[in-house]
Amino acid sequence: MDGQRFTIGVDLGGTNLRIAAYTRAARLLETIALPTRLAAGRDAVVDDMCGAIKTLKERFSSQYELAGIGIGTPGPLELPAGRLHKLPNFPGWDGFDLRSAVESRLEQGVIIDSDANLAALAEAELGLGRTMGLHSLCMLTLGTGVGNGIILNGKIWDGATGMAGEAGHATIYPDGPACTCGGNGCLEMYASATAIVRTAHQRRDYGTAPLLVGQDWTARSLAEAAKAGNTDAQKIYVEAGRAIGIGLAALINTLNLPLYVVGGGVIKAWDLMKPAIFEEVNHRSYVYRLTAPDSPIAKMNPRGATHIMPAELGSDSGLLGSCILPFSAHETA
Amino acid sequence: MDGQRFTIGVDLGGTNLRIAAYTRAARLLETIALPTRLAAGRDAVVDDMCGAIKTLKERFSSQYELAGIGIGTPGPLELPAGRLHKLPNFPGWDGFDLRSAVESRLEQGVIIDSDANLAALAEAELGLGRTMGLHSLCMLTLGTGVGNGIILNGKIWDGATGMAGEAGHATIYPDGPACTCGGNGCLEMYASATAIVRTAHQRRDYGTAPLLVGQDWTARSLAEAAKAGNTDAQKIYVEAGRAIGIGLAALINTLNLPLYVVGGGVIKAWDLMKPAIFEEVNHRSYVYRLTAPDSPIAKMNPRGATHIMPAELGSDSGLLGSCILPFSAHETA
Repeated sequence: MDGQRFTIGVDLGGTNLRIAAYTRAARLLETIALPTRLAAGRDAVVDDMCGAIKTLKERFSSQYELAGIGIGTPGPLELPAGRLHKLPNFPGWDGFDLRSAVESRLEQGVIIDSDANLAALAEAELGLGRTMGLHSLCMLTLGTGVGNGIILNGKIWDGATGMAGEAGHATIYPDGPACTCGGNGCLEMYASATAIVRTAHQRRDYGTAPLLVGQDWTARSLAEAAKAGNTDAQKIYVEAGRAIGIGLAALINTLNLPLYVVGGGVIKAWDLMKPAIFEEVNHRSYVYRLTAPDSPIAKMNPRGATHIMPAELGSDSGLLGSCILPFSAHETA
Repeated sequence: MDGQRFTIGVDLGGTNLRIAAYTRAARLLETIALPTRLAAGRDAVVDDMCGAIKTLKERFSSQYELAGIGIGTPGPLELPAGRLHKLPNFPGWDGFDLRSAVESRLEQGVIIDSDANLAALAEAELGLGRTMGLHSLCMLTLGTGVGNGIILNGKIWDGATGMAGEAGHATIYPDGPACTCGGNGCLEMYASATAIVRTAHQRRDYGTAPLLVGQDWTARSLAEAAKAGNTDAQKIYVEAGRAIGIGLAALINTLNLPLYVVGGGVIKAWDLMKPAIFEEVNHRSYVYRLTAPDSPIAKMNPRGATHIMPAELGSDSGLLGSCILPFSAHETA
C-alpha cells in the first residue's frame, strides 16, 4: 500500500540543497534545507546530500517502507548514466558521475532526472495536470534560466540521453544576444529572471529607459514597478511574453499537447506577460487557434482543448517532483 | 501470420490520389494512381478512392486476409474524428468528416492519419529507422509545404487532436514573410519547394539576383544551376539550409531523439543545404554538440547519438506509411 510507503527526494540547486521525505498522504513529511557548498567541492556537496538522505531514512523507516530515492539536478544530465555535463553554475562538475557517487555512499540505487523535468512531473501529478484531469503537458520554468519538461501520458519524456526538455534554448530571434549555451537569441535570453534584470540595467545604463534610472532592479521590483504603471518596466515584460508566446506556438504546433504550463519565479508577473503570450500564440499557431478552449473542436471534444496556464505549484515543484519520481515511470527514446 | 495478411493504403494528395495493396513480404503488391478530381467536388474524390479500395480488396482477398485500411491526408486533420480542417489546396473540404464518408461507402472501419506522420512512420519502419535500428525519429518533409511527423518508440505521436507534427509552421524569423497558416517567418516560408521558387523569382524580378534573370525556375532547375556554380541559386539553398538548421536545433533541444530525417523533393539539393544545416545545429543546439555521432557520449552509448540524415525512402513514403498504418500503433495525448 502506498499509504505505508515513503520516498526521499533531493533538489540540488546552485544555491540551495533540499532533501525531503514524502508520502502520498502527507506530501512533504519533513524537509532539510542546506546551502549548496559549491566552494567546498563536489564531494562535500554529495556528502551533505547523502548525510541528509540517511537522516531522513533512519527517521521514517520504522514507520514507513522506503519506496525509493529521487534526485533532481540542473541539466544537461546524461541518462541512463546519471552524469552531469557543463552545468553553468557548478565549476568542476563537468562529466561528474553523480549517480555513482551517491549510490556508493548510500549503498542503494537512486533515480535521477533534471530539475525542470521533475517540476513538470509534479505539475502533472500534483498540480495543474491533476486539477485538469490531463496526463500530458509541457512546462516552461522561468527562473535563473528557462527550464523545460515534457510529460507524455504521465511519463517524463527523457529522450535518448536524458536531455529532452531544453526548449529554453530554442532560438526565438536568430540574431539575438549570445546565450551561455553557445546559441543566439534563445528563449532564455528574453524570459528568464536573469535576462529581464539584465535588459533593465542595460536600458537604464544606455539611457533608453529613463523610467528605470537611479535604481538596481530585481525581477520582482521590476514587476512591481510595471504593475504601478512604469512603462519602461512594462515593455520588458511584454517583450518576455512575446518571446514565450513565439516559443509556445512552436511547441504547440509540434506536440499538440492539451496543457502548457508556465512556472518559476517570473510568473509573479503573469498578468503583465499574458496578453503578449496569447497574441503571439494566436498569431503563430493554427493548431492553437483550431483547439483553443473556446474553439468548436474543443467544445465538441473538451479533452482536445489546448490550455496555456500559470503553474499551480510554487517553488517546491522540483522537490515534489523528485519525491514522486520513485513512484513514476519515465520514457526514453 | 502477417505473411498471409494484406492492407490497403491511400495517399490523398492535392494532385494525385494513390491507392495500394501491401503485404509485409512483397511491400506494394499493386498501386492504382488517379488524378485527385478536386473540381468535381469532395464526393467524387471519395467515390474514386472507395472504388479503387474495393477493386484492390476484391482482387487480393482470395489470397490474403485484409488486416485493415489506412488513409493519409494533408493536415490539419482532427483525430479521433477523422475530420479535415482548412486544407489550403482543397476548396470546400473545411470541416469534412472524411472518415465517416469513407466508412459509410465501404461499410468498414478505416484508420486515418496525416501524410507527413505517415511518411515518418514509413521512414521509421521501412527506411532509415530500420536501417539504423532506431524506433524514435522526427521527420521534416520538404515539398509544396514543409510537413512534419514524430515517431516515439515506434508509434506516431498524434497529440491531443491529431495535429502534432506541424513543426513546418514553427517560427524561424519572427518578422519574416506571412505564411498561409497565418503566422510569419515559418520554416515553410524558407525550406519548401514553393518558397525556394518564390524567392528565386522575387530576387530575379527585383534585380537582386542577376544570375537568375531570364528564366522561370523550378526547385529542380534551381538546384541544378546551384550545383553548376550559380551563386545566386546557391545562396537560396544555403538560406533554406540555415532555416532548417535553426528549426532542427529547437527540435533536438526539445525532444532529444536519436534520429532527424529530412525528406521530400527538395532533398535532391541536400548537398547544397547540408553545410548550413549542420552549422546552425552545431551553433544552436548544445544537446546536439553533446550527442553528435563523434561525441564522447555517443561513443560510449551509440544509441544516444543524434543523427541528422536525408530520407531513405522517396516519394512513396506517404503511401507506404498508410499501408503499414493498420499494422502499427499510434499514441495520443
